[in-house]
Amino acid sequence: MNTNVVKAYGAQTSESDVLPMDIKRREVMPKDVEIDILFCGVCHSDLHFVKNDWGFSVYPVVPGHEIVGRVKNVGSSVSRFKVGDTVAVGCLVDSCRSCNNCKADLEQYCPEWVGTYGGHDKHLDLPTFGGYSENVIVEEHFVLSVPDNLDMAGVAPILCAGITTWSPLRHWNVTAKSKVAVVGLGGLGHMAIKLAHALGAEVTLFSRSPSKEQDAKDLGADKVVISTDAKQMEEAQNYFDVIIDTVPYIHDINPYVATLATNGTLVLVGYLGPLDPMLNSVPMIMGRKQVAGSLIGGIAETQELLDFCGEHNITSEVEVIAIQDINKAYDRMLKSDVRYRFVIDMASL
Amino acid sequence: MNTNVVKAYGAQTSESDVLPMDIKRREVMPKDVEIDILFCGVCHSDLHFVKNDWGFSVYPVVPGHEIVGRVKNVGSSVSRFKVGDTVAVGCLVDSCRSCNNCKADLEQYCPEWVGTYGGHDKHLDLPTFGGYSENVIVEEHFVLSVPDNLDMAGVAPILCAGITTWSPLRHWNVTAKSKVAVVGLGGLGHMAIKLAHALGAEVTLFSRSPSKEQDAKDLGADKVVISTDAKQMEEAQNYFDVIIDTVPYIHDINPYVATLATNGTLVLVGYLGPLDPMLNSVPMIMGRKQVAGSLIGGIAETQELLDFCGEHNITSEVEVIAIQDINKAYDRMLKSDVRYRFVIDMASL
Repeated sequence: MNTNVVKAYGAQTSESDVLPMDIKRREVMPKDVEIDILFCGVCHSDLHFVKNDWGFSVYPVVPGHEIVGRVKNVGSSVSRFKVGDTVAVGCLVDSCRSCNNCKADLEQYCPEWVGTYGGHDKHLDLPTFGGYSENVIVEEHFVLSVPDNLDMAGVAPILCAGITTWSPLRHWNVTAKSKVAVVGLGGLGHMAIKLAHALGAEVTLFSRSPSKEQDAKDLGADKVVISTDAKQMEEAQNYFDVIIDTVPYIHDINPYVATLATNGTLVLVGYLGPLDPMLNSVPMIMGRKQVAGSLIGGIAETQELLDFCGEHNITSEVEVIAIQDINKAYDRMLKSDVRYRFVIDMASL
Repeated sequence: MNTNVVKAYGAQTSESDVLPMDIKRREVMPKDVEIDILFCGVCHSDLHFVKNDWGFSVYPVVPGHEIVGRVKNVGSSVSRFKVGDTVAVGCLVDSCRSCNNCKADLEQYCPEWVGTYGGHDKHLDLPTFGGYSENVIVEEHFVLSVPDNLDMAGVAPILCAGITTWSPLRHWNVTAKSKVAVVGLGGLGHMAIKLAHALGAEVTLFSRSPSKEQDAKDLGADKVVISTDAKQMEEAQNYFDVIIDTVPYIHDINPYVATLATNGTLVLVGYLGPLDPMLNSVPMIMGRKQVAGSLIGGIAETQELLDFCGEHNITSEVEVIAIQDINKAYDRMLKSDVRYRFVIDMASL
């Protein structure tokens, strides 16, 4: 197969910074869409992958799975996109398309799903490379339409931070009657607040610090509960229908489970690992409460979210950076010094 | 208020055996049904309460919340029952009747629900006493009709072991299309197999020992997976829609979570306490899997179950004992030496 060499930024080893490199992209095949990348969001997963925190990085790594761009070229059988369209690509660029999950529009749970970076491009027999690059070539099914009215930089984080919180809000049936809480006010948390609010739910932020109250309310939260205040936590017992827990590090979820109403669900979307301290089954049994996990969202659900954001004029709060500042941005991200998502202006490449 | 002294068996302290005693019952009030007790099932909770394992027993304790009997007398405003009817009483004899859970027929999650024993009889200002006794007086709302075609001794365990497994099967929408697994083959587990099978589901028992295979199949299981066999557990990955985990002691649920399909739910109904080893969120997030708890069932749901059992001719497998053998029965229960539930013939009192 013919390949094209394109400019990108990536890491050569787990010790190296993210620096300029050239990568190969496959030629445009009949079902493919070639996209010039305009903006790419910076997800915490990018840094985990660069540093091989999960142990399965294959180098070189080119991160980036919150991609917004413009169609440059389409394959002969592409019907939904044309040159010049504003489009987006999220965390997935392929899946088996035949398993029960794929058939149910849950490609993110397909055992063979291919990540936008660190996956396996079956056509090239090479790792997939992400959005910190000039362009990307993606099969039509995994390409999304971006509503014209939205700021393109602010759209980028919808592709991961947005869909990761939208999918559980939808799966656990959040409506205008729901009481939703969000744990953590970062990239995911701020989108969870905006989206739950736009769905009409009553939205509460759990925060360790009163300093975030005004920000949370500006984003659409109705209330803030200070999680270190025993009285406030006591008053919040048995209240919430859905809690979206976005905290990306180990933490005690038992105090939040206690605030679930009967039939309520706490959904973990940020922390991967053992629940320490141990989860106590007593309040779960005494109130039919659930603890669940959720991973990004399927392609149809991501399009639904983009359309919803278009209708409600929702984008992520972003700080736009040049690609040359990516390593500094990672340092600031580790200190939670970002409100609320870095997005790379790929014109800087 | 007038009271009547009736014969019972109970424990005077956490150290004492269950022995004959006299207890007071309230007079029959307008909404009350007086029931002569014919059979009473022996639940593991009875023993926990006798021994004050949960720390809130008030002595003397008269256990028993799997009650089948005959109506002896009804209050002036009782409309659904008449003298001579075969009726049943389960784990609940009162609740607030006005909270959201009560209004949703989920009396078991009412913050003020009154247990059949160890609760608080507001009329007498005394603890409630359970079914190891001559009779019981219960407000009509909490009295259930028993289908005529069923063996009364075999009905008794439906009131706790049955409803505890039925409620999650119904809440998590088990149908003929479902793949259900049951962990543990005791009083609860054997009812879970019978009920899931009668709902048309494909039913698998997880067991540590191959010796239970034939029993499980006789009860309605389609398959048995030996949980200590790594190959069998590997083959069962990502398969079940609902797992009813009836194991009443601390155990590792992670191997069972791994066998849930996408969107699957493991429901804890037996073990109260911290989940040790720690529950790992990785497979939960990677497959949108849930861990939940569930407690007995509401009154309407219990009646639904009794009616279902009548239609499908389902009762519990029981060993009928005399009340004088209750302490021996507890000893055998602790060794899991019962297939599958002791039921006291109260004629022996």
